[in-house]
Amino acid sequence: MLEEMNEKCAVVGIFGHKEASKLAYFSLHALQHRGQEAAGISSSDGERLRTIKDRGLVMKVFNEQKLATLSGNSAIGHTRYSTAGDDSILDAQPVFARYDLGEMAIVHNGNLTNAKEVRDALIRKGAIFQTFMDTENLIHLIAKSEKEKLLDRIVDAVQRIEGAFSLVFLSRTKMFAMRDRNGFRPLSLGRLPNGGYIVASETCAFDLVGAQFIRDVEPGELLIFEPDKAPMSLQVFEPQPKKCIFEYVYFARPDSRVFGQSVYQMRKNMGVELAKVRPIEADMVIAVPDGGVPSAIGYAQASGIPYEMGIMRNHYIGRTFIEPTQEMRDLKVKMKLSPMTDVIKGKKIIVIDDSIVRGTTSRRIVKMLKEAGATEVHMRISSPPTTDPCFYGVDTPDKDKLIAANMTVDKICEFIEADSLAYLDENALLRSVNSTDDHYCTACFTGKYII
Amino acid sequence: MLEEMNEKCAVVGIFGHKEASKLAYFSLHALQHRGQEAAGISSSDGERLRTIKDRGLVMKVFNEQKLATLSGNSAIGHTRYSTAGDDSILDAQPVFARYDLGEMAIVHNGNLTNAKEVRDALIRKGAIFQTFMDTENLIHLIAKSEKEKLLDRIVDAVQRIEGAFSLVFLSRTKMFAMRDRNGFRPLSLGRLPNGGYIVASETCAFDLVGAQFIRDVEPGELLIFEPDKAPMSLQVFEPQPKKCIFEYVYFARPDSRVFGQSVYQMRKNMGVELAKVRPIEADMVIAVPDGGVPSAIGYAQASGIPYEMGIMRNHYIGRTFIEPTQEMRDLKVKMKLSPMTDVIKGKKIIVIDDSIVRGTTSRRIVKMLKEAGATEVHMRISSPPTTDPCFYGVDTPDKDKLIAANMTVDKICEFIEADSLAYLDENALLRSVNSTDDHYCTACFTGKYII
Amino acid sequence: MLEEMNEKCAVVGIFGHKEASKLAYFSLHALQHRGQEAAGISSSDGERLRTIKDRGLVMKVFNEQKLATLSGNSAIGHTRYSTAGDDSILDAQPVFARYDLGEMAIVHNGNLTNAKEVRDALIRKGAIFQTFMDTENLIHLIAKSEKEKLLDRIVDAVQRIEGAFSLVFLSRTKMFAMRDRNGFRPLSLGRLPNGGYIVASETCAFDLVGAQFIRDVEPGELLIFEPDKAPMSLQVFEPQPKKCIFEYVYFARPDSRVFGQSVYQMRKNMGVELAKVRPIEADMVIAVPDGGVPSAIGYAQASGIPYEMGIMRNHYIGRTFIEPTQEMRDLKVKMKLSPMTDVIKGKKIIVIDDSIVRGTTSRRIVKMLKEAGATEVHMRISSPPTTDPCFYGVDTPDKDKLIAANMTVDKICEFIEADSLAYLDENALLRSVNSTDDHYCTACFTGKYII
Amino acid sequence: MLEEMNEKCAVVGIFGHKEASKLAYFSLHALQHRGQEAAGISSSDGERLRTIKDRGLVMKVFNEQKLATLSGNSAIGHTRYSTAGDDSILDAQPVFARYDLGEMAIVHNGNLTNAKEVRDALIRKGAIFQTFMDTENLIHLIAKSEKEKLLDRIVDAVQRIEGAFSLVFLSRTKMFAMRDRNGFRPLSLGRLPNGGYIVASETCAFDLVGAQFIRDVEPGELLIFEPDKAPMSLQVFEPQPKKCIFEYVYFARPDSRVFGQSVYQMRKNMGVELAKVRPIEADMVIAVPDGGVPSAIGYAQASGIPYEMGIMRNHYIGRTFIEPTQEMRDLKVKMKLSPMTDVIKGKKIIVIDDSIVRGTTSRRIVKMLKEAGATEVHMRISSPPTTDPCFYGVDTPDKDKLIAANMTVDKICEFIEADSLAYLDENALLRSVNSTDDHYCTACFTGKYII
Repeated sequence: MLEEMNEKCAVVGIFGHKEASKLAYFSLHALQHRGQEAAGISSSDGERLRTIKDRGLVMKVFNEQKLATLSGNSAIGHTRYSTAGDDSILDAQPVFARYDLGEMAIVHNGNLTNAKEVRDALIRKGAIFQTFMDTENLIHLIAKSEKEKLLDRIVDAVQRIEGAFSLVFLSRTKMFAMRDRNGFRPLSLGRLPNGGYIVASETCAFDLVGAQFIRDVEPGELLIFEPDKAPMSLQVFEPQPKKCIFEYVYFARPDSRVFGQSVYQMRKNMGVELAKVRPIEADMVIAVPDGGVPSAIGYAQASGIPYEMGIMRNHYIGRTFIEPTQEMRDLKVKMKLSPMTDVIKGKKIIVIDDSIVRGTTSRRIVKMLKEAGATEVHMRISSPPTTDPCFYGVDTPDKDKLIAANMTVDKICEFIEADSLAYLDENALLRSVNSTDDHYCTACFTGKYII
Repeated sequence: MLEEMNEKCAVVGIFGHKEASKLAYFSLHALQHRGQEAAGISSSDGERLRTIKDRGLVMKVFNEQKLATLSGNSAIGHTRYSTAGDDSILDAQPVFARYDLGEMAIVHNGNLTNAKEVRDALIRKGAIFQTFMDTENLIHLIAKSEKEKLLDRIVDAVQRIEGAFSLVFLSRTKMFAMRDRNGFRPLSLGRLPNGGYIVASETCAFDLVGAQFIRDVEPGELLIFEPDKAPMSLQVFEPQPKKCIFEYVYFARPDSRVFGQSVYQMRKNMGVELAKVRPIEADMVIAVPDGGVPSAIGYAQASGIPYEMGIMRNHYIGRTFIEPTQEMRDLKVKMKLSPMTDVIKGKKIIVIDDSIVRGTTSRRIVKMLKEAGATEVHMRISSPPTTDPCFYGVDTPDKDKLIAANMTVDKICEFIEADSLAYLDENALLRSVNSTDDHYCTACFTGKYII
Repeated sequence: MLEEMNEKCAVVGIFGHKEASKLAYFSLHALQHRGQEAAGISSSDGERLRTIKDRGLVMKVFNEQKLATLSGNSAIGHTRYSTAGDDSILDAQPVFARYDLGEMAIVHNGNLTNAKEVRDALIRKGAIFQTFMDTENLIHLIAKSEKEKLLDRIVDAVQRIEGAFSLVFLSRTKMFAMRDRNGFRPLSLGRLPNGGYIVASETCAFDLVGAQFIRDVEPGELLIFEPDKAPMSLQVFEPQPKKCIFEYVYFARPDSRVFGQSVYQMRKNMGVELAKVRPIEADMVIAVPDGGVPSAIGYAQASGIPYEMGIMRNHYIGRTFIEPTQEMRDLKVKMKLSPMTDVIKGKKIIVIDDSIVRGTTSRRIVKMLKEAGATEVHMRISSPPTTDPCFYGVDTPDKDKLIAANMTVDKICEFIEADSLAYLDENALLRSVNSTDDHYCTACFTGKYII
Repeated sequence: MLEEMNEKCAVVGIFGHKEASKLAYFSLHALQHRGQEAAGISSSDGERLRTIKDRGLVMKVFNEQKLATLSGNSAIGHTRYSTAGDDSILDAQPVFARYDLGEMAIVHNGNLTNAKEVRDALIRKGAIFQTFMDTENLIHLIAKSEKEKLLDRIVDAVQRIEGAFSLVFLSRTKMFAMRDRNGFRPLSLGRLPNGGYIVASETCAFDLVGAQFIRDVEPGELLIFEPDKAPMSLQVFEPQPKKCIFEYVYFARPDSRVFGQSVYQMRKNMGVELAKVRPIEADMVIAVPDGGVPSAIGYAQASGIPYEMGIMRNHYIGRTFIEPTQEMRDLKVKMKLSPMTDVIKGKKIIVIDDSIVRGTTSRRIVKMLKEAGATEVHMRISSPPTTDPCFYGVDTPDKDKLIAANMTVDKICEFIEADSLAYLDENALLRSVNSTDDHYCTACFTGKYII
């Protein structure tokens, strides 16, 4: 898919470790794939909160000196994806506030569907909004709650918001972690090696800092972290799980365990299922890297057709502003992906990708493969046609830009100039992720949004 | 004085010019001496406000592309002095808010003396504060005012705050400029060459953009700028002028006209007055540059003692982090100031500075001059002893760090190892600025603060 | 292997294209894997040569404006790997010189084994060396040659040097490309889509700019490019091919065709051969990415054991200077590689890597896999033990640092704590690359250096 | 004059101090006014030379870590002015070379008039030139000299070159300092406080590092520095002093002692002489800062007309790439200079500048003063009309760009729209600098070049 849809953020929280901000830093690095535009960390030393946030990758935003100023035993962190312009620094997280109970900072992965209504209501009552993040709603709701204790106010506040939210709150002495009732976005709990706890969007963060996975924060659950206690759990909402199935399809790192299952294994399963859809004879199965690799391995194992590396990815990332020459076509794709000409020349190939968004990238990939000499290119997509935008924390194009919302599969096949095209259907996808109930959100494939 | 006390900010507002943000940019450059740590501009195109702000000098924060995004016919800007650390970006201005009447942005030069009380009261009512700037109080007060129109709300809001404030507000379609009832900090009104208006902390900004000075915004006056109208005036407070006399002594650029008078002329007058204080025979009058130059010229003219350039300033600014060698003493001063050895060797000199803050810099300067061969060094200060910190928008050390709060003039003379030391007394300073009433704040010399 | 040995450079030459420097730029980007420390391009407009070179990745060194100054129809470029310190900028290429025939620039991939003797002889005759690059020898030899024509002088010069060199020379009107008699380092010739030629270290550069592969520059061959002519060939030396087999093992990009064969295919062949060496039952074959992936695929296909993604690579590159906490072990490896815990837990795995250099990285990888739950870890290396340093253009540790120079395979296995360890032997490696003669240099495995 | 002509460089050498490179760093900072484009230092620890050089101000090029790598008891440094483009890094100094006697580094202030002939001759003998600096000639001449000892070779080499050169050479164990026979450019010798020596272009460098001025290096003199010895002197050429009088007029820092006399005092003398030329009644004397200030003070003292600060300089340097609006005229000058409107309004003023180069800047200054309300503007120039370009180390426009080469004084007065204009004549200028012989070069005013 090559970055046409993007997870909007990652969150992390560290509690009860004397180098909390350093652990947050390394965790954010492990979660960098969920947002590359800005990064931030707030820490508390029990007396006051300190926040550093800026544009750029985690490694660029922080250095030894900055981390040293973020002292204290607890810290929360955030990486952000953003399409915004030069003023995006204003919209980096954590969001910090001084309010009547003291100081707090919040990080948020997700998207509030009633953000505008809540904000308008708050504004009518005299609130002011200084950023364009819907996360700002939360600090207002907490500040305005008439409850006495922060815990009660958080409960109050989250009952006013709707949509997708995996949240971590930091006060001077406590930390709170929460998932919305649907549990759209992931959030896992781990134990630090020498005591203390970590929560993070994905378990790959645990591995880097040596933490042990305990369990997921449950949909609708609020975890309360206090010094020298085990985390307490409060089930704020009755859980109605609607976990984002696209985390399995594309967003999460394959070495993460998300929603209790291995991302890599789910992707392999999708490949296995895909092998059953419109099976075809071919010389090899290849992947559009990196997203399509696990499914292609699964497809190959299930079909018996050899898996080959047919496309290579160039990882010297960075944007060039140099215009290509007249003869250099499809540069944008070719700067990132190269065909393995000697592998695919004269071959009939099955190419696995995770999804087709606008169609233009797939079209370029097919063209690239054919120009490299592939005799037939059969594209297989490890998810159903992406027909609907996401309102729960993923950056998707508008519906009119989604090719599958506007064309039949046959027409898409024609557009991308593939010899055949097949998608996984919704049921097969659900089977791949071992779903025996309706606990996954598949709205981007079905338009069935949760109210 | 060499940067021991600092004006905290400069503000500017442009209304009714199709390149408003560009004019704000050049104006801020002219006002850069009032704050070098951060810079920001908000503009309005009638539909929405856009803000760009960042750490660094004006020329570094903005480029052609960024200014292009700040479209519209009105703009406000700010430069900031700050001692804050890495998170200071959060405290740059303009402060932006969405609220029930739409969007606004504010820039502020000054300091609110009741900021904590107002903030605590607002927080008790559920407000949240996301920065450490007292300016944030204002957007809250405006948002929470029960008046219907922005103008009325601004009036409401400024009646709740105390202290020093020269403010410029920008809404989608209007601009407002205001000075506190005491008019501590300057703010002037000018006319742009092809229509439109400018307000700025100092008139040197007018000169660069080709604007004509009209008049000062008056203490307690609110100016309202609407499209295709002359600015309307509303006297919100009965004026009780207490203009910061230190603007004349040190802060303002000598080519500015501040509080209706030429800064350069006022400084020359101080030199003339100073020539009357403990007159002494000497070979020459020299200045501690750049602050002391106009007074030294005045002193020389009044005394008939020749003015010479006895100390040179190195303008390749920037901080070095290289430790000096053991033999290199007083490097910090010497990186900025060099003695003109051939001028002062064997000479009896009068050296003029604007003020003595901690005393250590003056001590180093006297030492430097003596080491360069001056036989006698008589220091003359173009203001009274600085005995009290400022609460009206100037960054001053605490009282226990102010040498004149803790030593007699004789003791100070001894400490700085000068052959004689004399200050201007309060009356002479007031005469220098043509004061015939008590319309100047002299609290830093007298401790007589306005309540 | 994870970057313990490094190809020292890449070279490229463009002739006969009106946007020559732009093509050089994109080609260098495709060759970035061969050197990340510095980059440079020289171009000629027929009148004079212009050179821009600096530290950093290709995309950072050049921008639209800089490329625009590099006008003309011919250009040569270089990327450089370097361990040097702050003064390394002095050692970036192209090397430029004005001399009696005008101006020239040279780029060089390789290493001259008689550099010191040649340099000393030149110095004795009054030459001065301004850098620490052995490439500087060449411009001296050309300048001092008594031949009249540049072509003859190049022939003269290259006859004086020994070792490994793939070179591209640029004069005001011509370009020359040359490989040493052994052809240690690769260099290929291609045709640009609308006329003109390209030479480059690897064919992956051709693919990006739309060029067609023609053939390799032959060992000992000099190609002469003149306007409006096909390249002329001059066989300067009788070829004695000793092509660097490590290009196949590790350095070259898998999508490149090097020494006439597909790099990917050679690596797959190595995996196939490896499957025959000490075969073992296992649950899966995994690779140390990215180097080991093709061989692992080949191994899996040959052995019938499933290929899985068992280790993931984090491509958000960059160095952190943050010290890990006490509990975070093996951070340096873990920042780059993560175990796929759910894949390997409880499994008996075969892990394929391209080579073992010092042994410490392999040790950490085995440990990481075991900590992730692998019950057995059998390491297979797709090349023979690396026992000897390279003197032909590869940055290798000294012999006493090479674990295989100092331990038996059994001892290495013990040291890296693997359950078994096996290497490919020299013959099997040669079979993998279809060698039926002794046309490959295997000195790093055998110590048999060419004199 | 405002930077229309520029000194091309500064040099410094430190010998016999354990923090030699640090002293070189601070000295270069003091000499920054002589070149802002690039800076470099070479040091020797007795075994080898190390060089760091890069684009940018001294403070930007070096940091603690880089200085630490420049270990050893001797160091030479250079700052460079340059109009060159992006490749200028190649032309930074020191120039380093390995040659038959070991290693050397050279820094050079000046310009060789026979550089092309020498270079062409060297090139004909097989030398190669890797930069565009004429300084490169010197390392070739030394390397090719048939003398055995470095000292003899230096003597050999400097006898082959003509023009202006103040040079410092560094070998592994010695340092050499040399001025051409005419002594065009300054070079002074000082003693470091705890032993060791310093040579520098201007004495202002001595003051910063606490060194004592001993004497100038004499025209044609070579100083040899060896460990634990006083510097030895060798008079290589019979001195024919032709010291650059423009050092007094504009280039040198006023606190420096150059050619044995105080720069400030010379400038004051020029002002005194100028007061005799076409005397005129006026309300005040003002200077074009910073160059004109000392002469204006001298003029005022001699004429009895008060000195005032009539133009202010903005020292927040840096280039803006923002286009001015249509109404903003003469922005380039106004960004740097502002009129003191309140001082000059309604006044008849004499304005002192050091020189007029193209005329356009002077024209803008006169216009600016008149727009600010000056009733009459009489311009007085503290040097004769600049009619001829400099070939001895100053960056001057071509003759056809020099207004005084193409217009009479009357015409220039008309062009710059002044009410009167007068220059100092050559004799008066010579009187100002106490010249009783023909020991100054005045070629830029007279066209009388030394052969």
